[in-house]
Amino acid sequence: MKKIINAVDDILAQSLAGFGAAHADLVKVSLDPKMVLRADAPVAGKVALISGGGSGHEPLHAGFVGKGMLDAACPGEVFTSPTPDQMAAAANATHGGAGVLFIVKNYSGDVMNFEMAAEIIDMETASVLTNDDVAVESSLHSQGRRGVAGTVLVEKIVGAAADRGADLAACKQLGDEVNATCGSMAVALTSCTVPAAGSPTFQIGDGEMELGVGIHGEPGRERVALMQADAIAENLVAAICQSIEPHRGEPVLVLVNGMGGTPLMELYLLYNAAAAQVRDRGLVIARSLVGNYCTSLEMAGASITLCRMDDERLALWDAPVHTAGLRWGV
Amino acid sequence: MKKIINAVDDILAQSLAGFGAAHADLVKVSLDPKMVLRADAPVAGKVALISGGGSGHEPLHAGFVGKGMLDAACPGEVFTSPTPDQMAAAANATHGGAGVLFIVKNYSGDVMNFEMAAEIIDMETASVLTNDDVAVESSLHSQGRRGVAGTVLVEKIVGAAADRGADLAACKQLGDEVNATCGSMAVALTSCTVPAAGSPTFQIGDGEMELGVGIHGEPGRERVALMQADAIAENLVAAICQSIEPHRGEPVLVLVNGMGGTPLMELYLLYNAAAAQVRDRGLVIARSLVGNYCTSLEMAGASITLCRMDDERLALWDAPVHTAGLRWGV
Repeated sequence: MKKIINAVDDILAQSLAGFGAAHADLVKVSLDPKMVLRADAPVAGKVALISGGGSGHEPLHAGFVGKGMLDAACPGEVFTSPTPDQMAAAANATHGGAGVLFIVKNYSGDVMNFEMAAEIIDMETASVLTNDDVAVESSLHSQGRRGVAGTVLVEKIVGAAADRGADLAACKQLGDEVNATCGSMAVALTSCTVPAAGSPTFQIGDGEMELGVGIHGEPGRERVALMQADAIAENLVAAICQSIEPHRGEPVLVLVNGMGGTPLMELYLLYNAAAAQVRDRGLVIARSLVGNYCTSLEMAGASITLCRMDDERLALWDAPVHTAGLRWGV
Repeated sequence: MKKIINAVDDILAQSLAGFGAAHADLVKVSLDPKMVLRADAPVAGKVALISGGGSGHEPLHAGFVGKGMLDAACPGEVFTSPTPDQMAAAANATHGGAGVLFIVKNYSGDVMNFEMAAEIIDMETASVLTNDDVAVESSLHSQGRRGVAGTVLVEKIVGAAADRGADLAACKQLGDEVNATCGSMAVALTSCTVPAAGSPTFQIGDGEMELGVGIHGEPGRERVALMQADAIAENLVAAICQSIEPHRGEPVLVLVNGMGGTPLMELYLLYNAAAAQVRDRGLVIARSLVGNYCTSLEMAGASITLCRMDDERLALWDAPVHTAGLRWGV
């Protein structure tokens, strides 16, 4: 295992400390319990948006804390759920009197711990469960579909709505709707290595790729021969469209997301291939995003996400955001 | 070789097409000759800033085309200089009547071709040669030090000055001064693989790293045993400070740059270690930047850059920028 670290046990705390130091204008970082809070939290009268999950998917979620997105992120150890006390502390620190919305990727540990957190805090809470990964119906760590890169879109769109004064019920409804009309699927060319394990999560041959891989290296639909980018795009876009069923002429957002170890040059090439597939289906690419947003440590690979858009969602997507991972309008 | 591509010969054109489609609000992409131009070029009365070089370092340079940074980028094939006709076409397309400044990383092919371009075009030109890599005095592809991630800082700071109306001589002088007070050094944990070669550029053992590696995988100072992050930071910051000699109490910008295959979690951890080293030397971290800015395809590794700052440079750094790779204030 080759990583730029000091000791395996220190990775999360030292990385969070670095994140906090690099973005002191945006966030306050607590190391006990571990949480990343908006620097200006609590924002009075605003629904507090809190997400979290295992680390190793950066910039998700800490990189999306700030004006127009999350109020707090609760990072667990690599690929390990954070604990209810982290979530409760984040809720107490960011609650502005309008309730707390948990945005939770659908993995059993995360779901259980966010539910426990909701029980031990006093304020009103609701949850949006993201499960945008169309690859498989259940997986190693999830009952039902997995939450992956579509979570970024939910956090951005609901974040903008909360910023504009939407109440807790409206934020939850919007988040559920965006999640339901958003689909993702990934391919892996190499495995990631979890630091505490010290060796690759899975073995994969030189000529192979995992079609539909999860963001923890979980198996996808099948192990196949390495495809060309055009064929990857065709497979992923077809699977996503079969799930979210966009109408001809409908505006969509296209996200091409790197898993951590794939050069930007390849991501733009894959975007080019994906855009052709999307246009061939009569869809209108209204917005796009290309880069590393929901990663799997150093895994080589990429995911495609499509989200059905409308005027309201486009306005919320375009609304100002100021986080480490997404920034515009400020 | 595992890459998300169609065919080796198509990589650059298809990646550029994807870049242009994803950022149509920012840039115009030409495929013959290959160049990325500001969407609103030419900007009348402004010095046109043009950079370029081999591809594989994305987001450098195309990702820095837009308001407040470059007017054009000329991409060569992977790790191969662009040609003079590309540079001349970019100059003709972006020249706004105030001259053209070439920002050139110090590699023999790039230097020669930008010089030839300056000879075949009619307008007034000047060049800033970046050579911020303090690792080695000469290298495989360079006479004198190599230009690496500090180039991003030169492009941002001079870009802001040009935006404010600085003339060609002032832009050149500022670029030369920033370059001279800016130092970088990198480590590689793995090699990159140039698509046309098909196999890793260099071999490196499981317990080894290359200290002072170049952005094309060129040898650095020495092959050493893999160090902990704190020791990497200590080595790089010491080498940089020995070169740029910052004064105690002086404000500096700290850039921790990923080489392409290193997770953000490790880059923030390295930033944490680098910041401690910088503070221990009595320097003031006035600005910071952590992420993938000047990469080497999928190489695992990172570089640290320090740039001595003053009030003028801080104001230019903070000035609005709207590119694919850096964006704030708009």
